Amino acid sequence: MAEPLRVGIAGLGTVGAAVARLLQRQAEALRARTGREIVVAGVSAREPDKERGVDLTHAAFFSDAAQLAASPRVDLFVELIGGAEGPARASVETALANGKSVVTANKALLAEHGLRLAALAEEKHVALAFEASVAGGIPIVKTLREGLAGNSIDRVYGILNGTCNYILSRMELEELSFAQCLAEAQQLGYAEADPTFDIGGYDTAHKLSILTSLAFGTRIAPRAIDVEGIERVTLADIEAAAELGFRIKLLGVAQRTAQGIEQRVHPTMVKKTTAIAQVMGVTNAVTIDADAVHELTLVGPGAGGEATASAVVADIADIAKGVRSAPFGIPSAALRELRRMPMRRHEGGYYIRLTVRDVAGAFAKIAGRMAERRISLESIVQRGRFQRAGDQSSAPRSVSVILITHATSEHLVREALEAIDADGTIVGKAQVIRIERE
Amino acid sequence: MAEPLRVGIAGLGTVGAAVARLLQRQAEALRARTGREIVVAGVSAREPDKERGVDLTHAAFFSDAAQLAASPRVDLFVELIGGAEGPARASVETALANGKSVVTANKALLAEHGLRLAALAEEKHVALAFEASVAGGIPIVKTLREGLAGNSIDRVYGILNGTCNYILSRMELEELSFAQCLAEAQQLGYAEADPTFDIGGYDTAHKLSILTSLAFGTRIAPRAIDVEGIERVTLADIEAAAELGFRIKLLGVAQRTAQGIEQRVHPTMVKKTTAIAQVMGVTNAVTIDADAVHELTLVGPGAGGEATASAVVADIADIAKGVRSAPFGIPSAALRELRRMPMRRHEGGYYIRLTVRDVAGAFAKIAGRMAERRISLESIVQRGRFQRAGDQSSAPRSVSVILITHATSEHLVREALEAIDADGTIVGKAQVIRIERE
Repeated sequence: MAEPLRVGIAGLGTVGAAVARLLQRQAEALRARTGREIVVAGVSAREPDKERGVDLTHAAFFSDAAQLAASPRVDLFVELIGGAEGPARASVETALANGKSVVTANKALLAEHGLRLAALAEEKHVALAFEASVAGGIPIVKTLREGLAGNSIDRVYGILNGTCNYILSRMELEELSFAQCLAEAQQLGYAEADPTFDIGGYDTAHKLSILTSLAFGTRIAPRAIDVEGIERVTLADIEAAAELGFRIKLLGVAQRTAQGIEQRVHPTMVKKTTAIAQVMGVTNAVTIDADAVHELTLVGPGAGGEATASAVVADIADIAKGVRSAPFGIPSAALRELRRMPMRRHEGGYYIRLTVRDVAGAFAKIAGRMAERRISLESIVQRGRFQRAGDQSSAPRSVSVILITHATSEHLVREALEAIDADGTIVGKAQVIRIERE
Repeated sequence: MAEPLRVGIAGLGTVGAAVARLLQRQAEALRARTGREIVVAGVSAREPDKERGVDLTHAAFFSDAAQLAASPRVDLFVELIGGAEGPARASVETALANGKSVVTANKALLAEHGLRLAALAEEKHVALAFEASVAGGIPIVKTLREGLAGNSIDRVYGILNGTCNYILSRMELEELSFAQCLAEAQQLGYAEADPTFDIGGYDTAHKLSILTSLAFGTRIAPRAIDVEGIERVTLADIEAAAELGFRIKLLGVAQRTAQGIEQRVHPTMVKKTTAIAQVMGVTNAVTIDADAVHELTLVGPGAGGEATASAVVADIADIAKGVRSAPFGIPSAALRELRRMPMRRHEGGYYIRLTVRDVAGAFAKIAGRMAERRISLESIVQRGRFQRAGDQSSAPRSVSVILITHATSEHLVREALEAIDADGTIVGKAQVIRIERE
């Protein structure tokens, strides 16, 4: 049997403690799988003596994560501190510079500094593994990097944020408003007190930037992502979607096109019959379209201590066996600059919900604005009867109209809506939700 | 750059030709991923000159697969001949004995000889990889062997045969009989002229035996599987299932219990809302229940040349990078004997469809037979009115009754049905379909 692998864990929160417990609980199986003993030789945490359901008395304690990363007592450094800068970044850089492999769940660190860290890992011939950084327990990094090595990938998209999917699921199932479901998610601990990072789509964007790089061999480009959150999705949209055979999901989508790579995060209409539409609650899912495998979908837990620890431990086991893949599948020097496909050139179907005024010829005018730009309509649904907006008897009567377009261009839709707005035929702003084809 | 990896492909049917095409099409990407050139240096096939959409003129041709396997021209042998014996077995043994890694899609070979072949590969320090042998393009072998290395697995189950899932899907969607859908599947090339191997569940059983070994660290045991096919599933069952919120799927299930490991293949009622129930047509899916990751589902193509080739090429790429896992995750000598949990001790819910005679007290008697064995019923559905069996006016009238039981034991259900049969309260045989819990 080879030498034991001595692991240092920085950050003993929910995930870090679960990793330590899992390494202990699965010690025998991991020895059989990897041919080595895996021992937690050092830890770093804010509260050294907190009860974590695992005996860490044999591990050296470091108050400074970077000291743990540099310590000759550890061969492999596990970073579970979080954050793109500060001790997380410093300790990961220290570990790699000292020729130690790194396992991290830190999507923000990777999104911001992944390329440079990968280059450093390659230079030192060590691993930089980050299965846990995207979609928690789902082995999507391994699948893209190894499982689909023979494929040219066309698109990767998924539900990458459990908070958003929980809120959208509850809105549909319980017929509640966005605000009600957000408050509920906060009570249950699924959403932060400041939920912007989740519901604004930024968490999904970080994760998507990692998937894009793995899928297309491009340099990680978190700022080349068009991001819209779920704040503006209403129960009316969700109900209309259901009637039309769709469900609304916050998706991160990375897609190869002739003009470049689209990276976008936004509420999306997906056909109810697709695998991704069935994914409810905090569960995550990722679908990959590729030339050889056609379509592959992975569904599983996107968060939670044990599920995330499952991904961390899988990375540790690979490193224990001596597996050394380039962090992003191909050498970082070979990663190409991402050519950004601008959102206004996006092509696809659109769901457009308008509050149309009850004035003569209003709808004809709207239809004309679409037709001028050769936007053809797949369906038109009028919901309810004409009503006075805001229940004011003096206000003009209006009605909700939903248009589903055939595939067209984002800029044509935007142009048409500007013209409709200028015509004064609608009340308020149009609601626009992109439709994602299967 | 390291030396080129010289690949020999035995069998140039649909999958073999697709592997050769994929290696050519993805040559640049594979070089970037693995750091090596991957070249097809030799091939073996029945028809050397057939058009296969790929230039193989630089590959040496061998009429005998074992000669290709032994040839000093190749480093890695890819077996795509098929069959548990004959040239497939001989050539794989030859390759391993000659210290060459092997990639195969041959589930029958692995089910029958996997343990011995794994031991030979380990002795020679070479790889024996078989991602393509189960669920085609779905990277389930890699997921079980590597992605879930930190988990203790409780259950793995899935739709592993596209032919059966196609037939069951069509029966439901088109309201057709089993015989009609089988004939259609044969016309479309989804089913063989002799479909027994698929619809009898034997193909699923071969694949399940491989998953069991990977999931539980047990020696492959294809004869310790209880197998029932889909031949007896009727449209009446499918319709009744739908009404009760279920769908019928042919599942392969391997489950850890206190008494041993259950391996079973049979038509199964799954809740319509589960990920696996949504999988229609020839698509495959596998769900894993494990302690850390909780539940993970992979959905993708279970067959087809390109999808299967995707899995073969991923194995080739891993080997090119120098990855050497034990074929079944842990050394073959450490695989434990599978302790078989007998089917009569299976615990779960049951769907039971009876044709009940219209005689006084018939149903009370049936209910009594269940109650005697403490089988409690979740629901009772009478379908239609009493009718004369077989439209013969002299025959006694009868009615279809469906019972859904709470969790109970297989042997109690069998005993109850024997007693009911002996009582003469039913016409014909009871239809019994096990319910798989989420």
